[in-house]
Parts: sequence; structure tokens; C-alpha cells
Amino acid sequence: MNSFRFWSPTEFIFGKNTVDKVGQLVKKYGGTKILVHYGGQSAVKSGLLTNVENSLKNEFIEYVKLGGVQPNPTDTMVYEGIELCRKENVNFILAVGGGSVIDSAKAIAAGVSYAGDFWNFYEQTVTINKVLPVATILTIAAAGSEGSMSSVITKSKEGLKRGVSNPLLRPVFSIMDPTLTFTLPLNQTAYGIADMMAHVMERYFTQTPNVELTDRLCEAILLAIIKDAPVVMREPGNYNVRANLMWAGTLAHNGICGVGREEDWASHGLEHELSALYDVAHGAGLAVMFPAWMQYVYTSGIDRFVQFATRVWNIEFTGDKKETALKGIKALKDFFSSLGLPVNFEQLGAKASDIDKLVETLKINSGGQLGNFRKLDMNDARMIYEIAAAN
Amino acid sequence: MNSFRFWSPTEFIFGKNTVDKVGQLVKKYGGTKILVHYGGQSAVKSGLLTNVENSLKNEFIEYVKLGGVQPNPTDTMVYEGIELCRKENVNFILAVGGGSVIDSAKAIAAGVSYAGDFWNFYEQTVTINKVLPVATILTIAAAGSEGSMSSVITKSKEGLKRGVSNPLLRPVFSIMDPTLTFTLPLNQTAYGIADMMAHVMERYFTQTPNVELTDRLCEAILLAIIKDAPVVMREPGNYNVRANLMWAGTLAHNGICGVGREEDWASHGLEHELSALYDVAHGAGLAVMFPAWMQYVYTSGIDRFVQFATRVWNIEFTGDKKETALKGIKALKDFFSSLGLPVNFEQLGAKASDIDKLVETLKINSGGQLGNFRKLDMNDARMIYEIAAAN
Repeated sequence: MNSFRFWSPTEFIFGKNTVDKVGQLVKKYGGTKILVHYGGQSAVKSGLLTNVENSLKNEFIEYVKLGGVQPNPTDTMVYEGIELCRKENVNFILAVGGGSVIDSAKAIAAGVSYAGDFWNFYEQTVTINKVLPVATILTIAAAGSEGSMSSVITKSKEGLKRGVSNPLLRPVFSIMDPTLTFTLPLNQTAYGIADMMAHVMERYFTQTPNVELTDRLCEAILLAIIKDAPVVMREPGNYNVRANLMWAGTLAHNGICGVGREEDWASHGLEHELSALYDVAHGAGLAVMFPAWMQYVYTSGIDRFVQFATRVWNIEFTGDKKETALKGIKALKDFFSSLGLPVNFEQLGAKASDIDKLVETLKINSGGQLGNFRKLDMNDARMIYEIAAAN
Repeated sequence: MNSFRFWSPTEFIFGKNTVDKVGQLVKKYGGTKILVHYGGQSAVKSGLLTNVENSLKNEFIEYVKLGGVQPNPTDTMVYEGIELCRKENVNFILAVGGGSVIDSAKAIAAGVSYAGDFWNFYEQTVTINKVLPVATILTIAAAGSEGSMSSVITKSKEGLKRGVSNPLLRPVFSIMDPTLTFTLPLNQTAYGIADMMAHVMERYFTQTPNVELTDRLCEAILLAIIKDAPVVMREPGNYNVRANLMWAGTLAHNGICGVGREEDWASHGLEHELSALYDVAHGAGLAVMFPAWMQYVYTSGIDRFVQFATRVWNIEFTGDKKETALKGIKALKDFFSSLGLPVNFEQLGAKASDIDKLVETLKINSGGQLGNFRKLDMNDARMIYEIAAAN
């Protein structure tokens, strides 16, 4: 096991009707003039935004609103948010939505306190050292941004998708009411499931030896998701499975699965090019890229893939490691398919003829290499895209 | 799943040579005049205390020392600590030791800022609302106090053992160097293992339905402990197993296994009377009481005991729930025995003839009832002590 630091100070308020508490919580954490940041019209139509505003008004908290965050949130919105916060002397940001809204809020929070271009943080040329406090009301179980220290933003003009991680980006509190996810369309529910599973697997597939406890934790979260995911597709209004999945999404990405081990993140790197180019959902892209990545790298650590197959997918080990490993990968792919997720380029709406373009931008975004389970260069990346296209 | 709040703001600094960072960390968290609280001579003899003092001196942090905390820490030491902190204007407490030292430090931290008797917090007649910051350097993997919001203190004169839980009692940081546990005697290592397993099981055995994710997390931690415990008994200087066990002890009790479910804690209540009366190790008492509690209550939720047997102990379910449940309980007891732990009164040094006395003080400490998996009264408690005596 490697040495590590782990710090996850977010207060989670989980359960039905927890949104009503937002005013009190903002007050507790010092917000007096806040930005309410949100996505499309669903938060308006569902009445969620009205509930939020009423709770804020009850505590005499002033606020301005900025809606319209899209999936794969862009720098354009971040610049707008930063300007608005400065103009209005905002001292606290409340994100109402899923990972895109929260990531956008985090970028604004870091950008407001910085005289330069916030994009520097995402290019990793400057380190974040001061942020406005961010809190969240989560409406999509997927990205884990409600508890994580990460944010991913797309620079729309150049199509660059970049992430930054910093402990200061952890939200101060996150309100999680599973009933808010009842009306999430099934395809988006499935994208969320792929996203959270990917967050666990990026940590699970490691070369760090002797990480039995975190292995078991990763497997625990995957097993719970695998059990509940088919149920939620049949019963989208089932509170208990929505609740388990919502909390799974948080634990999948708050870092608890990754402490003490080298993480991988190649599949995320490969996927970011797909969602940047085609504007597809991140979770859909991950469902395509993760199995393809596995098919390419499994021989670099076959015992771990055998463990994945036997412990997570309950596949019997017959003595043939390669066969067992491949069965595990196939089980994952079949599972994604069973949820209606794409598992190849065609199903995603991607084109094999774009692979050159994908590799080209990946080279810029990754600096020409990615991953740790196996260190990949751009030739490897091309091969994995080709596997994903042919799958 | 039940609604919950979860807040675990402790910063964990985990790995070799992390003790050297203590001065910088105390400074970061605002400590300028600190109490270094510790146990017996092992922290002195090993040189640990000298390392701590050197790190503090490097940062020009003033400190006073208070050693001598015993297992099952007492009110006497807490009063002494409170007085010392007031006299010396201490604004930060550093606990160097295991659960007893940390629990004592927490009690002092709460007592210093309170004009009344700190024992009121443990009698739960007054709620803690202000504490000095507490940090820890952990030397024993067991109690989980390094990440928990709990503290247990024994009122020595009356032999009352009481616990309090409050989010303010979470340490601000905890330094965890697994090498510090290399020299822990094997019996104490085993007590620690029983303690952390008990912390998971107090949460695992619940009547709250639909808690698949936290079930899996509980099982994950138990599985990791079960794998690593026999190894550590053979190889006490094995860094990786010491590391896995140390982090398991933290996760077992930081709350992550208990969110969204009703917890039990009857076995802890039953055990506290044993360690208060005989001054035996808490973990030893738990190894005796937990299987006895299980034998008494398993029919109140046999499916959960079947799950425990099959998932945690890999026992095949043959269709007979009772048989499978009992096999699981026996597996736990055999496992404790294999680590050299006591599993009955005789092995613990307790006497069946003291059961009246145990029940009498338990009645005072518990208010006459305990547990949630099955609500137990004092007749039930007596029966469980009798099972433990006869085991």
C-alpha cells in the first residue's frame, strides 16, 4: 500500500425533503450573497428551483441565478459565472444539478478569486489556492462531483476537455434527495451508472500490490451497483435503489476507493475526446471505452482481471486465467448492453474514420501519454479506439 | 435506507515517517500551545515522543505533556487534563496513542470549554457545543477513535463506563504510520482486530431494509480483516497487512458503514460492563460477547445472519437457514479463537457468579434496555451473559 492523504470534509445531508434545509445550511457555512447555478429547464419545471429559492428567502439570503449549464460544461459559462459573481459580490456558490453543473460551479469558485484566466488551473500551469465555498443539491447520481475534489471543463472553441483536482474543490455540503432522481430519463440513469462504475474501476485497476482493503471496497460498490442497476431501470421510482445508487456515485469518486494505490484514468482520457468531439454523454462514452481499454491491457495484470471476474461477476475460475479475465470483461460489456448503453463506436454515434482526429486532440490533452496500469502512448490509444470501433 | 447526515472532516496522513509532519500540521490547524497526551512508557522508550517533540520544536510550538493514560481511560485523568489545559492556556490537544488516549483527549477537549462537570456529556444530560481541536498520532489499530466522533470514559469510583458521540469530537487530523504498530504485542493486535470487526458488525446487524451498499461495504472491511489478521499474527512486521488493518480500523468506525441504517451496539453495552469490572481489554471482551449476542438474537433476523455466513465466511447455503446462520456464528468464534482471543468467560477471566453484578451496573449504564436488532431488556442481557459464560 502506498502512503496517502485523505481529506473529505463535505457534509452530506441525505434523504427525502432535505432540499428544504438548504437555506439553513448556506447560512451555517457563511453564505450571504450566493450564486444559484443550474442547468436546463427541468430544475425550473419540477419546482426544485422554487423550493431552493423559498428556503434561501426564509433565511434572508440574497442570491443571483445563472442557469443553462449543458452536459460537458464549457469555459464560456464559467467566464460568465465569474463575471457575474464579481459584479454581484457573491461569496458562496450553490450548484443545483448533476456533475456538469457542479463542475461548472467549482470552476467559477476557483476563477472568481484569481486574477488570471481560470483555464490555467485546467492546463495545470497554476495551482488553485483560494476558492469560494461551493455547495450542491444533487439531481443526478453519476459524476460524484458532489463529494469529489475534481472538476472537468471543455474549452468549447478548441474542443479541449480538461480536468483539475484540488482538495479546495470539495463542496462544503451536498444535499442528496434520491426522489430528485426519480424523473431522470432511463438513458441518463444508465449513463450515470456507467460513470460511477468507471470511477471505481479507474481505481481498481492498479499495479500497486497489497491493497486488499481498497480492493474489497471497490468490489463492494460495484456489487451493489450491479444488483440495483437492473432494478432501477424497471422501477425508476424505487426509493431504495435510487438511494443506494446515489450514495454509490458519491463513494465511487470521493477518493475512498483510491487511497494507497496508483490509479489509472486512461479510459477517462480516451473518453473525453469522444464527448468533446460528438457531445455525447460522458457515461455513454465510458461504456464504450472502458471494455475496449480492458481488452487491450488485461495481459499487463491478468491476476487482477481474474479477481475482477471472480469477485465482481461471480465467474468461476477454472484455471485458465486468460479465459476467466476475458469472461469478466465480457460480463461488464454485456451488463452495459443490458442497461441500453452503447458499447461500440456505432452505438455511440462515433466514427472509426475520426480516430486520427481523436488521437490528435488526445495528444494535446494528455501530453502524449496516459494511464498507469499500462503506460499508454498514442499508438496504444489508437489501437484502443480501433477495438472500440470494432466491438 | 434511512435518511442520514454524514460528516467526516478528519484529514488522514497515512504512511511511513508521517510523524515528522506533526509540527507543520498542528500549525496548519491553529495550535500554538498544545497538550501532548499519551499512555505508558512505550511511546517514550520507542523514541516516538521525542520525534513528536522535535517536530513541534521545529515549528516553535509550545507544549505541555500529560502521560499515563491506561486502557479503559478514567475520569480522573480527564479532570487532570482539563485542569492542566486551563492552567497552561492550551488551545490544541495532540493524542499520541491508541483509542484510550484519544478518547481521553476528546473528553479533555470537550471539558476545557465547559464550566460544568465534563461527565455530564457522558451522562448525556448536556450536549457538547464547543471543543478544543484534537489531533492524533495513532499507535494501535483498533478503536477507530482517530476518525470517529465518539469517546468512551470510565468513572473509576463507580465503575461506570459511558460513551458520547458528537461530530465536534472528530479529530482535525490523524497521523497513521503502520510501522508504529509493528511492536504491538500479539494479544493487543488481536484485541484490536476484534474491536474493529465489532465496530463493523454493530452496524451490519440491522433491521433497516434495502441497505445493499452499506451491507457490501461492511462485508468488504470484514473480508479484508479476515484475510490479513492471520498474516499479521505470523508476521507482525509486515507493513502491508499492518497498513490494511490500520485503515480498516478507521473505516470500521468513521461512520461510513452505518449511514442510512439503524445500528445495534448491544454487544458494546454488554462488553463495557466486563471491561469496567475486570479491567480487561475492550477487544477481548467483545470477542466474548459478540458471538454470545449473535447466538441469542439470530432468530430475530435470520436472513441477515445467512447473508453474514455466506458472504463473509464463504459458507455454502444448503437451504437450511438456521444451520447456515449458526455456522456463520461459529466461524466468527473459531476465527477469534484462532487469533488467541477469549470467546467465553473463563478464557476472559470473568466469572458466571458475577452476572448479577454485571446486570446491575448495565441497568444503570443502559437505562435498562439496549440494542436495536432485537430490543433487549435486562433479562435478555442476563441470558446473553450466561451464554458467554457457558460458551
